[in-house]
Amino acid sequence: MTQKTNLIDGTAIAAATRAETAQRVAALKASKGITPGLATVLVGDDPASAVYVGAKRKACEEVGMNSIGYTLPATASEAEVVALVRELAGRKDVHGILTQFPLPKHIREDAVLAEIPIGKDVDGFNPINMGLLGLKGKRAPFAPCTPQGCVELLVRTGVQIAGKRAVVLGRSAIVGLPVGLMLLARDATVTYCHSKTPNLAAVTREADILIAAIGKARFVTADMVKPGAVVIDVGINRISDPTRKSGSRLVGDVDFDAVAPLASAITPVPGGVGPMTIAMLLRNTLEAAERL
Amino acid sequence: MTQKTNLIDGTAIAAATRAETAQRVAALKASKGITPGLATVLVGDDPASAVYVGAKRKACEEVGMNSIGYTLPATASEAEVVALVRELAGRKDVHGILTQFPLPKHIREDAVLAEIPIGKDVDGFNPINMGLLGLKGKRAPFAPCTPQGCVELLVRTGVQIAGKRAVVLGRSAIVGLPVGLMLLARDATVTYCHSKTPNLAAVTREADILIAAIGKARFVTADMVKPGAVVIDVGINRISDPTRKSGSRLVGDVDFDAVAPLASAITPVPGGVGPMTIAMLLRNTLEAAERL
Repeated sequence: MTQKTNLIDGTAIAAATRAETAQRVAALKASKGITPGLATVLVGDDPASAVYVGAKRKACEEVGMNSIGYTLPATASEAEVVALVRELAGRKDVHGILTQFPLPKHIREDAVLAEIPIGKDVDGFNPINMGLLGLKGKRAPFAPCTPQGCVELLVRTGVQIAGKRAVVLGRSAIVGLPVGLMLLARDATVTYCHSKTPNLAAVTREADILIAAIGKARFVTADMVKPGAVVIDVGINRISDPTRKSGSRLVGDVDFDAVAPLASAITPVPGGVGPMTIAMLLRNTLEAAERL
Repeated sequence: MTQKTNLIDGTAIAAATRAETAQRVAALKASKGITPGLATVLVGDDPASAVYVGAKRKACEEVGMNSIGYTLPATASEAEVVALVRELAGRKDVHGILTQFPLPKHIREDAVLAEIPIGKDVDGFNPINMGLLGLKGKRAPFAPCTPQGCVELLVRTGVQIAGKRAVVLGRSAIVGLPVGLMLLARDATVTYCHSKTPNLAAVTREADILIAAIGKARFVTADMVKPGAVVIDVGINRISDPTRKSGSRLVGDVDFDAVAPLASAITPVPGGVGPMTIAMLLRNTLEAAERL
């Protein structure tokens, strides 16, 4: 991929926010003697989950926060996981708790999430956070990390949100729903569309800001994008690519090569929204510690 | 107002749902010996609030439920109101708790709401309810009554929601936000617009289903409505009317006389969404008791 002038460089923006977080961590240590701590709970031996947790723990340490990792076997009972999270909820050195999903099927994710106090829910997955996101004047304790990353990319790129038409393609609890609510709270006119929307291209073409979060490889084609739109691609899809040694590569929900020439700004995949997620997790954890 | 064939008769639909609720109340008494009970908490002597609470209590009794009313003086402290709600939260004969808003200014509404257990929050005002509304497959404990009334009117009128474009004008926590999420969960393509939306008429004209909840008298004019749209008017605004003995009358957020000829179906004000709110409160209270 060649560097384009309209490219939103998530890697660089994430690095900048992480540097700011590192400064605030240092300031908190100096002023109050508090080192923010993120506890991660990994259950089972899913390789992808292990990679994600490892990346989050490493990122914590790089900004000067404590990373407190727990790994339970795939055979751990729900009661055991709940007991661990409950213990972490009460610990003073733990400011944020992250349980890596998916959990093994015999463990109910809701039951585990319910044990994380709102003030330590740095993933922002508690429904109460969702309910508060769209409300002007009320602040959700923590916005979920990926949608927050999308908004941060827009803000740091200088994209005006207020008064613009934002179209969110996808309505998942983790990304689509909350990012729409966050844009609404920032005075965008927000449309949610999805797999059941007829004439989808006509709807997505209304977007000044298009958030693609439908989870289908290169689903957003050039005819679905209004010239000049800002396109944020949340998708991470692996497709086969015989030209690569690995035989595959990552692409987003947007057909980048076709859409990029039309867009006034666009995030690449990888290197767009992805790096922002961990950066927002770190900032949420810091802020959980700052609020004490 | 003359009866129009495209009129959505909220009074009649509310009466039908109340009759169904009365039957289910009788069945619950017969099968389990449980009489659903709604506790109302009124603080101070605001005349409008007293009228609303009185109407809710009377409606409870009409469907065979217990109405348990508490009135505290305007001088009651936040701690006193919280203590009362906490006591009601623990009572077995109280299945739903309703604190009439607005509370006196020295009492934080959030602090009082936080004392109502989710399972007794029949007003559906807890943010956790909001967060769950938009999620397919997850059921919010209780949908807030007015938005639920809007959806019920659509369903009972046979209006198709899935695949339609729904536009919500207004984004309040009580009506706009939740009604949009409820329509999204029913597979509509949902757009939120509001006072900061430029070129508002062009946006509202996209609506197959238009929900007017902006709180401005006769704000929605004919040029803002696509011919054939279904219009749900949530507004209740008092305007002066020298031809009335009272000197005033109630109108909605829609310019009814101008819009009704265009719409395929439309709710009047009064007699549209209004009667549904109490009907949904009764049903929520019944369901709280049924779930025991």
